[in-house]
Amino acid sequence: MTPTEDRIVSLLQRRFASPSPLLVKGIGDDAAVIRPKGAEELWIVTTDMLLEAIDFRRGWQSPQQLGWKSLAANLSDLAAMGVQPRFYTISLALPRGLPRSWLVQFFRGSASLGGRHKAVLIGGDLSRSPEGIQISITAIGETRRRKVVYRSGGRPGDLLFVTGVLGRSAAGLSLLQQGRDRVRTVSERRALDSHRTPDPRCAAGEWLAQGGFARAMMDLSDGLSMDLRRLCRASGTGALVLADQLPCFTDSADWGCDPVELALHGGEDFELLFCVPPRKVSLLRDAWPREFPPISNIGWLEPGTKVTWRSAPGMPSRPLAPLGFDHFR
Amino acid sequence: MTPTEDRIVSLLQRRFASPSPLLVKGIGDDAAVIRPKGAEELWIVTTDMLLEAIDFRRGWQSPQQLGWKSLAANLSDLAAMGVQPRFYTISLALPRGLPRSWLVQFFRGSASLGGRHKAVLIGGDLSRSPEGIQISITAIGETRRRKVVYRSGGRPGDLLFVTGVLGRSAAGLSLLQQGRDRVRTVSERRALDSHRTPDPRCAAGEWLAQGGFARAMMDLSDGLSMDLRRLCRASGTGALVLADQLPCFTDSADWGCDPVELALHGGEDFELLFCVPPRKVSLLRDAWPREFPPISNIGWLEPGTKVTWRSAPGMPSRPLAPLGFDHFR
Repeated sequence: MTPTEDRIVSLLQRRFASPSPLLVKGIGDDAAVIRPKGAEELWIVTTDMLLEAIDFRRGWQSPQQLGWKSLAANLSDLAAMGVQPRFYTISLALPRGLPRSWLVQFFRGSASLGGRHKAVLIGGDLSRSPEGIQISITAIGETRRRKVVYRSGGRPGDLLFVTGVLGRSAAGLSLLQQGRDRVRTVSERRALDSHRTPDPRCAAGEWLAQGGFARAMMDLSDGLSMDLRRLCRASGTGALVLADQLPCFTDSADWGCDPVELALHGGEDFELLFCVPPRKVSLLRDAWPREFPPISNIGWLEPGTKVTWRSAPGMPSRPLAPLGFDHFR
Repeated sequence: MTPTEDRIVSLLQRRFASPSPLLVKGIGDDAAVIRPKGAEELWIVTTDMLLEAIDFRRGWQSPQQLGWKSLAANLSDLAAMGVQPRFYTISLALPRGLPRSWLVQFFRGSASLGGRHKAVLIGGDLSRSPEGIQISITAIGETRRRKVVYRSGGRPGDLLFVTGVLGRSAAGLSLLQQGRDRVRTVSERRALDSHRTPDPRCAAGEWLAQGGFARAMMDLSDGLSMDLRRLCRASGTGALVLADQLPCFTDSADWGCDPVELALHGGEDFELLFCVPPRKVSLLRDAWPREFPPISNIGWLEPGTKVTWRSAPGMPSRPLAPLGFDHFR
């Protein structure tokens, strides 16, 4: 039942992780945490690879959008730790025949997202690829007042929250898969925008870390069913998800999607999933800044290790199968 | 005449580099340099991508050797700044059909080089590739006493030195290209070892930085003719190389190579190229630790921008064409 990619990571963690006095957290969270000698803050490193034909198709977004989204996936990992983006590197392998303007537009897209979150391009690597575009980004963040949130801090009884809307990016992907890349409605536009130019929740993540509201946090990149399982495994808990509480993107029913299915299993929403101790919930709701995307309580952590869901109140709870995205399944 | 990859990097530097109070050096050197608030030392970040069929062939080395070499290329960039390796991330995209043992062996190879230089694996990404193995590594280093050496510090009159032997890795590559991957002689073994498991010159680089001997430094990854041009451009100088002073790997003549050609243009030696002010040369020669690879004075920096070479004393100097490795040519 455990997704394959996670098993490989566990294997690497067991066999190749080694301690260092400067390392606060190594392999296995959204990002690694370093404490440079004498530094006021902790520094966070995350890296992500995106491949044509696996993670994206060239015709489904412009080069700018691809540059934006590639960096967004990395900044989202920093957001999930509650830290501020500072720097990033971009390595690109490009097939023959891509015009130089493609490259400039790609970097324009990433720079425009980077500028929004004050992340600065500091280096990278350019290479010829035998086939397809390959993108590898490393992003580096800095804590504020040394506050950082891990996946592992959840406790049974904590309430599970998410930011924003779930399944909207997958709804956009579905439009593209149906060949409908020209928008006709506001809903379609929103879905495609979510898929092509997601905005990582950096400000919300930092706010949650600073206020001490989120005891555990991660970003939703591979789908709630997959990512919640990771949070639970790291925290040593189970969880129950209330499907009728999910902030689904209901408009996707218009183009044949099941909004609940997409909210449970659709990837790349880059929203935050976080755990709040019950006594802090009303304070959180009161203090939550209005300019942030709304938050929804979608369930809670439970003792044990089972991750389950319930379609409606009074219905029996069922195992939540990890049907999100796994490269190695 | 300018190699294409460099022109693209210059373009990115001009258009997308932006300042940050925490950034000491951005795009364009071997690595970027960061000054975390309050930190005793500077922190260095470098990243490199390696692709099957472009940078390596699967049959030409074991997975361990590939893991070793991939990390070596990154640690060599840190060595070239004179700093100590601390951490690294590895992202891998793997095609179907690679056994899990391949992955474990790859990480075993990188971990064994990492252990040698006290670099710790802190994260990465695993992904399915549609075809071929793709490797992306980011390495992070720390200065000692804030000393770091850039490409740009060279001045006309500085003497040009290299560590070790040049063209030996290319001689090993030539054996592989000839289908001679089983060694029969000590020379063949050395050439293949240089190509498959190069040892980055971390200790020598740090020593040169600490002693203040190297005014400018970089590592030789794409061949002397290409890399020297980069050092000269960064330093605003020209250079003259004395071919009869090059520490060539003469044994390669046994398998049809031209040792001088390989020393001038062959890539992946991962030796250090550095500039020493004339007044420090005899001190350098006296103090150079015996356990390090030998150093050779191969020429000097000159005023102007011309990079030239001379085959023997008294011969006319000729332009040194950048015939090393360029992904985009």
